[in-house]
Amino acid sequence: MRHFLTLDDFTKEELIEILNIAFDIKAEIKNGIIKHRMRDKSLAMIFEKSSTRTRVSFEVGITQLGGHALFLSSRDTQLGRGEPIKDTARVISRMVDMVMIRTFKQCDVEEFAAYSKVPVINGLTDEFHPVQLLADYMTMIEHNKANHPKVAYIGDGNNMAHSWLMLASKMGFDLSIATPKGYEVDKDILNRALKNAKISAAKISITDDPKIAIKDADVVTTDTWASMGQEDEKRQREIDFRGFKIDSSLMKLAKKDAIFLHCLPAYRGQEVSEEVLEGPQSVIFDEAENRLHAQKGIMLWLDTHRS
Amino acid sequence: MRHFLTLDDFTKEELIEILNIAFDIKAEIKNGIIKHRMRDKSLAMIFEKSSTRTRVSFEVGITQLGGHALFLSSRDTQLGRGEPIKDTARVISRMVDMVMIRTFKQCDVEEFAAYSKVPVINGLTDEFHPVQLLADYMTMIEHNKANHPKVAYIGDGNNMAHSWLMLASKMGFDLSIATPKGYEVDKDILNRALKNAKISAAKISITDDPKIAIKDADVVTTDTWASMGQEDEKRQREIDFRGFKIDSSLMKLAKKDAIFLHCLPAYRGQEVSEEVLEGPQSVIFDEAENRLHAQKGIMLWLDTHRS
Amino acid sequence: MRHFLTLDDFTKEELIEILNIAFDIKAEIKNGIIKHRMRDKSLAMIFEKSSTRTRVSFEVGITQLGGHALFLSSRDTQLGRGEPIKDTARVISRMVDMVMIRTFKQCDVEEFAAYSKVPVINGLTDEFHPVQLLADYMTMIEHNKANHPKVAYIGDGNNMAHSWLMLASKMGFDLSIATPKGYEVDKDILNRALKNAKISAAKISITDDPKIAIKDADVVTTDTWASMGQEDEKRQREIDFRGFKIDSSLMKLAKKDAIFLHCLPAYRGQEVSEEVLEGPQSVIFDEAENRLHAQKGIMLWLDTHRS
Repeated sequence: MRHFLTLDDFTKEELIEILNIAFDIKAEIKNGIIKHRMRDKSLAMIFEKSSTRTRVSFEVGITQLGGHALFLSSRDTQLGRGEPIKDTARVISRMVDMVMIRTFKQCDVEEFAAYSKVPVINGLTDEFHPVQLLADYMTMIEHNKANHPKVAYIGDGNNMAHSWLMLASKMGFDLSIATPKGYEVDKDILNRALKNAKISAAKISITDDPKIAIKDADVVTTDTWASMGQEDEKRQREIDFRGFKIDSSLMKLAKKDAIFLHCLPAYRGQEVSEEVLEGPQSVIFDEAENRLHAQKGIMLWLDTHRS
Repeated sequence: MRHFLTLDDFTKEELIEILNIAFDIKAEIKNGIIKHRMRDKSLAMIFEKSSTRTRVSFEVGITQLGGHALFLSSRDTQLGRGEPIKDTARVISRMVDMVMIRTFKQCDVEEFAAYSKVPVINGLTDEFHPVQLLADYMTMIEHNKANHPKVAYIGDGNNMAHSWLMLASKMGFDLSIATPKGYEVDKDILNRALKNAKISAAKISITDDPKIAIKDADVVTTDTWASMGQEDEKRQREIDFRGFKIDSSLMKLAKKDAIFLHCLPAYRGQEVSEEVLEGPQSVIFDEAENRLHAQKGIMLWLDTHRS
Repeated sequence: MRHFLTLDDFTKEELIEILNIAFDIKAEIKNGIIKHRMRDKSLAMIFEKSSTRTRVSFEVGITQLGGHALFLSSRDTQLGRGEPIKDTARVISRMVDMVMIRTFKQCDVEEFAAYSKVPVINGLTDEFHPVQLLADYMTMIEHNKANHPKVAYIGDGNNMAHSWLMLASKMGFDLSIATPKGYEVDKDILNRALKNAKISAAKISITDDPKIAIKDADVVTTDTWASMGQEDEKRQREIDFRGFKIDSSLMKLAKKDAIFLHCLPAYRGQEVSEEVLEGPQSVIFDEAENRLHAQKGIMLWLDTHRS
């Protein structure tokens, strides 16, 4: 049985398999074809953090596959009552067919998976957001940006930066990350990426200068400066992230036909200007929609790798 | 593509079309026939205010049509995190097939609809509650009160009063509204109703005397004096609404066979007496059930008016 | 029409009927057979207390039967706004096909049922937890502990103790309950059990000595010392329940092949030691899974006893 906890757990070939499933199903649904490939299967969605995109995309996704999603927030369940993860995992995985977890610590998702009888999907942790990255890569492919592209990630060295490190180092493309001082990516994760890069021939570079990172990029992306739980650091972060806003003048340094990605929600005037976010290079709503398709690919792939 | 934001957006003929669908489906289900006319379709239900009837009726409704409802409260989603409506609308409408919103400001629902790729239904705002009114009109038809009736609305000049103005002025019946001083209906909405009334031959009258309003009425209705969000005004409102309670003595002024409607929840001893609420003229549970059928009519009508 | 409010409302024969349905469906699903016996039926799940197991098992259960569960928490609905139970019951039961309620007072569930047009299931009250007990009895049968067993319940004289009294006195087995002074079972419920026991030949005994209760038991069970809502009494209860922890030394007094049951969540080091909970006699995850199957049995039985 396989879980989907980080992109690092997968070979390049496996990730391409998942993407191919996702593209096939997307094409089907655009032609009005819905096949109940996970008929009567139940997906427990455990949310310790709030969510719009992850919630809607997983719930609609499993529904279109003929299954059913259970929305379990820590408020409504006894998960918040201090039951050990190993107990919750063993109970829930006796009743459902798949589990998606959005929580804080990566190690909690890993512990849940270790005790689970069914596949577990990481729906975002403080360290990684792997399902988002498959949607991003689908969007790059659709916009012809997957052929040895240069991707520039400008912003916080957070779970999105970490996940880009994993994607680039697995798929073998160029990634340039610019983070302000004090907001660098995790060193261990960077080292794992650099190790992967030796096999995939990915080029990973790290800088604190957004202009260097974005230079001639095919894909430009960022993330909110203050993620969930960091709202009280917002003021300080606005100071520290000065010069990291992706606006038109910064975008001009990228390739002319570069696309702009953002996992949303976006804060206009902070990490990105209204002009760029709403401009012709922005493909953020294609990207958001691809969450739905990418995650169906993940669920179906896991469903067929149970034994 | 059409939305269901106010009754004012619809012609009388269109409203009758929707009602006919609702009656047909109600008859089917009473005969045990369930047809999945919206098979695999997803309805996002966005609730910024709490709800029982709207929640249950929409969720059961779309289920019986073969579709799936997603319950999105502002607590569980990132809607409360300050994402602009236009972004939420564009993201969610890429993933689902229809959206129902219960929120505060009518303009928020309208903005959502303007950016949505799929039909949007107003599930109650501070200004209007149009889905309730279709259920009320269904109930009037079933109890033979739709042939040039006089409807008396006694109480707060709120979203229910506004919606009755729209229904009466579209369908062309008599409506007499009695509100205490300081709780009058919105003037702009009244003017829209009066304008509609010229075409439909509806008779709209406004008074601050419940006895005048209820005189010879075929249908008597009211609403809670303190709607959601007005709980702290409750005490003052109880004073201001003295004489507006619908009790047996007031009901005697209506026609002998008048029916009593209430969108619920009802506060006994305030806007209505226990005696009237539980009495033989009260058809409030028929009315509540008709929410289910009316809303199926709305969803199906919108589903077939997408292009 | 029948409701499932306490085990006391059922004959032994009826409880066996329900269990047989549950075993049949469990066997089917283990063979990959899912039959939509409650196709398109809606189950409203009303939660006034939080829940993991009850929530997941009912929602997955009705899904596998082809139906749909609505999760209604008092936070998200207007149930918390002071609407009388009799109104909520009449409204909701006009729209759904079955109702499950988890709440505080048993009398509230009974009032809801009295006004409901559809079957109502008690999903835990302060007095009873009957659905859990059917899962427990299924687990006893599967582990060959249903042939005139002795069951020892060691702990709080709460809804679990009361439900064991009902199960034992209906099915006719031996039950020995040990509670600390001040935490005895309810006298009225005990008397009802003793009355039933005369017919079923059950042997009910009550003590404040865990060692006497557990002596030669075939089944050993307990429950958390501080149930939901009693968290502030936790410290005092830890003192009062000294000697009531089920650990290896206490377990040695039971029969060698005794099984250990716990409805979960369990608090290690309090009512049960880690060693016992995770030990070979513990069948708690079989028991948790049986919630799913037992409740499908209950729903199907009620569904076929509507007239």
